[in-house]
Amino acid sequence: MCVSKDAKVAVVMGSDSDLSVMKSCIKLLKDFEVQCEVMVCSAHRTPDKASEFAKNAQANGIDVIIAAAGKAAHLPGVLAAYTPVPVIGVPVKSSTLDGLDSLLSIVQMPAGIPVATVAVDGAENAALLAVQILSVAYHGLREKMLDYKKSLAEKVEKKNAELQKKLEEL
Amino acid sequence: MCVSKDAKVAVVMGSDSDLSVMKSCIKLLKDFEVQCEVMVCSAHRTPDKASEFAKNAQANGIDVIIAAAGKAAHLPGVLAAYTPVPVIGVPVKSSTLDGLDSLLSIVQMPAGIPVATVAVDGAENAALLAVQILSVAYHGLREKMLDYKKSLAEKVEKKNAELQKKLEEL
Amino acid sequence: MCVSKDAKVAVVMGSDSDLSVMKSCIKLLKDFEVQCEVMVCSAHRTPDKASEFAKNAQANGIDVIIAAAGKAAHLPGVLAAYTPVPVIGVPVKSSTLDGLDSLLSIVQMPAGIPVATVAVDGAENAALLAVQILSVAYHGLREKMLDYKKSLAEKVEKKNAELQKKLEEL
Amino acid sequence: MCVSKDAKVAVVMGSDSDLSVMKSCIKLLKDFEVQCEVMVCSAHRTPDKASEFAKNAQANGIDVIIAAAGKAAHLPGVLAAYTPVPVIGVPVKSSTLDGLDSLLSIVQMPAGIPVATVAVDGAENAALLAVQILSVAYHGLREKMLDYKKSLAEKVEKKNAELQKKLEEL
Amino acid sequence: MCVSKDAKVAVVMGSDSDLSVMKSCIKLLKDFEVQCEVMVCSAHRTPDKASEFAKNAQANGIDVIIAAAGKAAHLPGVLAAYTPVPVIGVPVKSSTLDGLDSLLSIVQMPAGIPVATVAVDGAENAALLAVQILSVAYHGLREKMLDYKKSLAEKVEKKNAELQKKLEEL
Amino acid sequence: MCVSKDAKVAVVMGSDSDLSVMKSCIKLLKDFEVQCEVMVCSAHRTPDKASEFAKNAQANGIDVIIAAAGKAAHLPGVLAAYTPVPVIGVPVKSSTLDGLDSLLSIVQMPAGIPVATVAVDGAENAALLAVQILSVAYHGLREKMLDYKKSLAEKVEKKNAELQKKLEEL
Amino acid sequence: MCVSKDAKVAVVMGSDSDLSVMKSCIKLLKDFEVQCEVMVCSAHRTPDKASEFAKNAQANGIDVIIAAAGKAAHLPGVLAAYTPVPVIGVPVKSSTLDGLDSLLSIVQMPAGIPVATVAVDGAENAALLAVQILSVAYHGLREKMLDYKKSLAEKVEKKNAELQKKLEEL
Amino acid sequence: MCVSKDAKVAVVMGSDSDLSVMKSCIKLLKDFEVQCEVMVCSAHRTPDKASEFAKNAQANGIDVIIAAAGKAAHLPGVLAAYTPVPVIGVPVKSSTLDGLDSLLSIVQMPAGIPVATVAVDGAENAALLAVQILSVAYHGLREKMLDYKKSLAEKVEKKNAELQKKLEEL
Repeated sequence: MCVSKDAKVAVVMGSDSDLSVMKSCIKLLKDFEVQCEVMVCSAHRTPDKASEFAKNAQANGIDVIIAAAGKAAHLPGVLAAYTPVPVIGVPVKSSTLDGLDSLLSIVQMPAGIPVATVAVDGAENAALLAVQILSVAYHGLREKMLDYKKSLAEKVEKKNAELQKKLEEL
Repeated sequence: MCVSKDAKVAVVMGSDSDLSVMKSCIKLLKDFEVQCEVMVCSAHRTPDKASEFAKNAQANGIDVIIAAAGKAAHLPGVLAAYTPVPVIGVPVKSSTLDGLDSLLSIVQMPAGIPVATVAVDGAENAALLAVQILSVAYHGLREKMLDYKKSLAEKVEKKNAELQKKLEEL
Repeated sequence: MCVSKDAKVAVVMGSDSDLSVMKSCIKLLKDFEVQCEVMVCSAHRTPDKASEFAKNAQANGIDVIIAAAGKAAHLPGVLAAYTPVPVIGVPVKSSTLDGLDSLLSIVQMPAGIPVATVAVDGAENAALLAVQILSVAYHGLREKMLDYKKSLAEKVEKKNAELQKKLEEL
Repeated sequence: MCVSKDAKVAVVMGSDSDLSVMKSCIKLLKDFEVQCEVMVCSAHRTPDKASEFAKNAQANGIDVIIAAAGKAAHLPGVLAAYTPVPVIGVPVKSSTLDGLDSLLSIVQMPAGIPVATVAVDGAENAALLAVQILSVAYHGLREKMLDYKKSLAEKVEKKNAELQKKLEEL
Repeated sequence: MCVSKDAKVAVVMGSDSDLSVMKSCIKLLKDFEVQCEVMVCSAHRTPDKASEFAKNAQANGIDVIIAAAGKAAHLPGVLAAYTPVPVIGVPVKSSTLDGLDSLLSIVQMPAGIPVATVAVDGAENAALLAVQILSVAYHGLREKMLDYKKSLAEKVEKKNAELQKKLEEL
Repeated sequence: MCVSKDAKVAVVMGSDSDLSVMKSCIKLLKDFEVQCEVMVCSAHRTPDKASEFAKNAQANGIDVIIAAAGKAAHLPGVLAAYTPVPVIGVPVKSSTLDGLDSLLSIVQMPAGIPVATVAVDGAENAALLAVQILSVAYHGLREKMLDYKKSLAEKVEKKNAELQKKLEEL
Repeated sequence: MCVSKDAKVAVVMGSDSDLSVMKSCIKLLKDFEVQCEVMVCSAHRTPDKASEFAKNAQANGIDVIIAAAGKAAHLPGVLAAYTPVPVIGVPVKSSTLDGLDSLLSIVQMPAGIPVATVAVDGAENAALLAVQILSVAYHGLREKMLDYKKSLAEKVEKKNAELQKKLEEL
Repeated sequence: MCVSKDAKVAVVMGSDSDLSVMKSCIKLLKDFEVQCEVMVCSAHRTPDKASEFAKNAQANGIDVIIAAAGKAAHLPGVLAAYTPVPVIGVPVKSSTLDGLDSLLSIVQMPAGIPVATVAVDGAENAALLAVQILSVAYHGLREKMLDYKKSLAEKVEKKNAELQKKLEEL
């Protein structure tokens, strides 16, 4: 098994406007101390850059790609076409159709080229899924993930305690 | 203006199974005596071929590209990313979600890279739209299109006459 | 081939409230130095005007029609019924159903009469598609389109550079 | 009040293939002894015929128009644009999108031009609605409609009696 | 034929919160000088009142019922079950599902009991449809409707003139 | 607590065609030895019968009502309007819109009158939910339900064992 | 029959942010003087707590469980898997897809394990359904429910009276 | 890095009827010589088995879980709640709602617990995604995946050659 600090994730966004959604993804990857490079790169406006990036991903030591895009969101699928590295797709909600277009454009990939799709605007889960994937190979990440899951449960308990107080005041 | 027999359309399908839908498109293009090259080429399984094709489309004298694909249908958008030639997208209905996935994946292109989208399984309209586009440049096609529109109206009249007979028998 | 300054596009809107969406379309056509006439004309409230306009479009030298409408958006299809000139349809999002009604009313045209549909509120792409169609016939537009595509890519690169700075500050 | 035998309904279909759906509508109108003329007429393939028909509907003594169409179903709205006569729209289910496209294209008419929309493939209800509208003006139809409603209730009672027998055998 | 001032429409709302939507309907009916009684009456909270109202509608001289309701919008269908008077249904958009629930609950009536459905929040069209229905029987309304249609067209022309000025300033 | 054999459920169907879906519901209620009366009764075709039935449900000793209906499925909501007895709604899939219309017409009840909705065509779950509701009051049913849940688990185990064999043969 | 004050409902929320929706549910249960315990408990973040809670629900005297959750809303179904106590599910609308995801995730339970689903954000109806279920077993609640239904009708009447005044001012 | 023959995937199905869909997944895993255990296990009918399985997955050497389920498809999310091992979800199309319910129930997981979702009935892509995930850790799998991608491209080329022949015959 490999050392966790060598794990490397690339976060690619179809537009810089996706940063507001993807910030929490990047932060979470840092919390897990996973190396993370971030890039704006469009399947439609910079297709050569996108294909170059994906073709070299494996050689550049990238273990997992997270790609976020909205509307006819082709970026995750286009990257997946060019690389054997697992690609996680984040459908970004745009101003029309409530994210359904982004979701279907990413998740409904035809047989042969999968994209691991998370919820609409599911940036945090993209980071967590990347960590879960990396933890198949890298020491230490699984333990951190178990700690994270514990902290989630503890937060629920804390919220529950706060709720009980609020209820008394109701 | 150019001579109509030089007009050239490329019909690209994401999968050979799309031929059953696209046959009527190819036949209609032939009826209009438009040159037409047909190809199976997948945005996901043969991405390099797709980008090569699109990059060279203009140089190869292709005036309009018709691209048909199903599910997360990226082919029309991916071709459009690589060429200034107008791209017509045909969303193909697949076994789930009734064509909505194909439609949204093709029509909801982000600003900068348009795809001229027709109806789900709208193969004939893709051919007719190609002819309408070509007729901006090529002599003779507009006249043929006007004839075609007349024939459509005549067919409706004929059907109407037949209907009146059926009604008597009702 | 013809001279680009003779290229002529008509932009038709079902309602003057569509102008806020269509402004970017008109501006982009001007950037490409394409002649552009703009009109409010409703398939339902001024049907005679709409049919007259469409019947005379070819004779009036209009090469491409862009029609924007919302809800049960019949305008693009109604214009297309009366003219062999290619019609681009822009589904405008209204206050209910998130644009799905406009989209389906425009894109799902029955066989015989195509409408080249772009994304919901996809005004800019309507202009770009018009330019791509015109560039089949008119000199100079293709070069401008290639420049435009380059500028899109450069904008992405610039945004990416800005992103890298923001990330350092994160 | 007028005599019921003078009441006149026009049933217009966008395509002759709609007859299989609309047969029950025509039969029901005959059962109510309402005059009924039937016609294939397309908003897109025979737009002039459609507008002519609608413009003359009132002068031709037509009281109610029933218009059936599928996909981007513009026929009912287009007819309504040209006439003050009430128009009933029947969305016909086509091979894709399960009738949602037809329904939204007909029912979501913008302010000013209403179409009285019934269910997808709701041919019988179109006839009944026409009769209800006619019965505002024509003697005798309301009584027939009340009889019809009674017969509906009796059929339910009969079905219920049959059901009780089937249940014993269960 | 009857005198237009005797025409009578009942506007029924499932909730008083629907008034904000239905105001324009009531105003338009007044503009057409049609008698109009308005009532809050719920199919679910006051079912007996609703059925009583509908049973007596004909006897009370009501020619057309307009019923507006949201969510699982049963009011129009429930009223239609109890009366041979034509019922127009207005689906009201609520806080979830963007009006699709209201629309389907009203328009998808099973065979036997039609509801004449207009667009989501289509209050004005409900009034206009009522007038069109009444004009089958009542003198004078058809002329007013033709005037109304003319005024719609004139408004479009005025908007178009204003648009041309705005364009110069663009 | 009451004796289970006194528990009584009414199963009401909007149309006799719903029996093919509801058979499994009736059978399951019999398996649980719950009294069960079955009836065809339409909210639209026999509204008086429906309201009479619901008004008398409590007095007739009915503990739970199961109501199945399709399309604009008003039956469960209409019954619930007239009775304090809990009503379970079964949306029945019809020939268009894939059951979404039935589902939304039943589940989206406005505040004040709930309907306990199960899945589209979820007849068995309607029976099981009725038993769960009855078991709040009636002795013995909870034990039967626990047995039923055990049998469900055992069936899964048996299916799993069979699967293992099939896999060997794969 | 049992005494109403012993009736006990558990209200479980997947997240403390659901409280804003569920407040009206809790208040209504208190108005009916039903015992009510409230808890934040997530099917995904605290799965063991959720299963423990559900396994012990019957032994802890809980008669009905109300579970509210958003997005891929598994909480109601997961609780129902572990208990024979009836579970009412409240789909909570989240920031994307307008509540359709929550609704389908809760209502479309497979055969064997029902969840009694109410409308998206239908918190009040969840409380009323719980009371209706409890009133099968507990004395006094049915009377309160009948009073509540009367108060609903009176509110409608009051609103109607207010409406009449507003109309005069219109 | 680890040896590929030690890689282990668990394929879990909510129902044995899912095997017809999941067969191609199991076969593909075998083609990649990945160890694969298959199991029927329901989140609702055998919840304890499901949670036990997930809790022990890591200890039992399972690297990736593939979970397939239909309708309110909770299985993938429920397993993910109990384990840090990455979970791939396969939404299975059922007899109603065309797979949209399954898709949304799986992909819209709330923050904290991701499920890597593939297309509706996307069994092959689930296997390929599992292999891509495993290849982060296990030697040899990436090479096999690259070979697989090459074979996909070759198949497209072969289909294209066949298409050219068919076209000659057209």
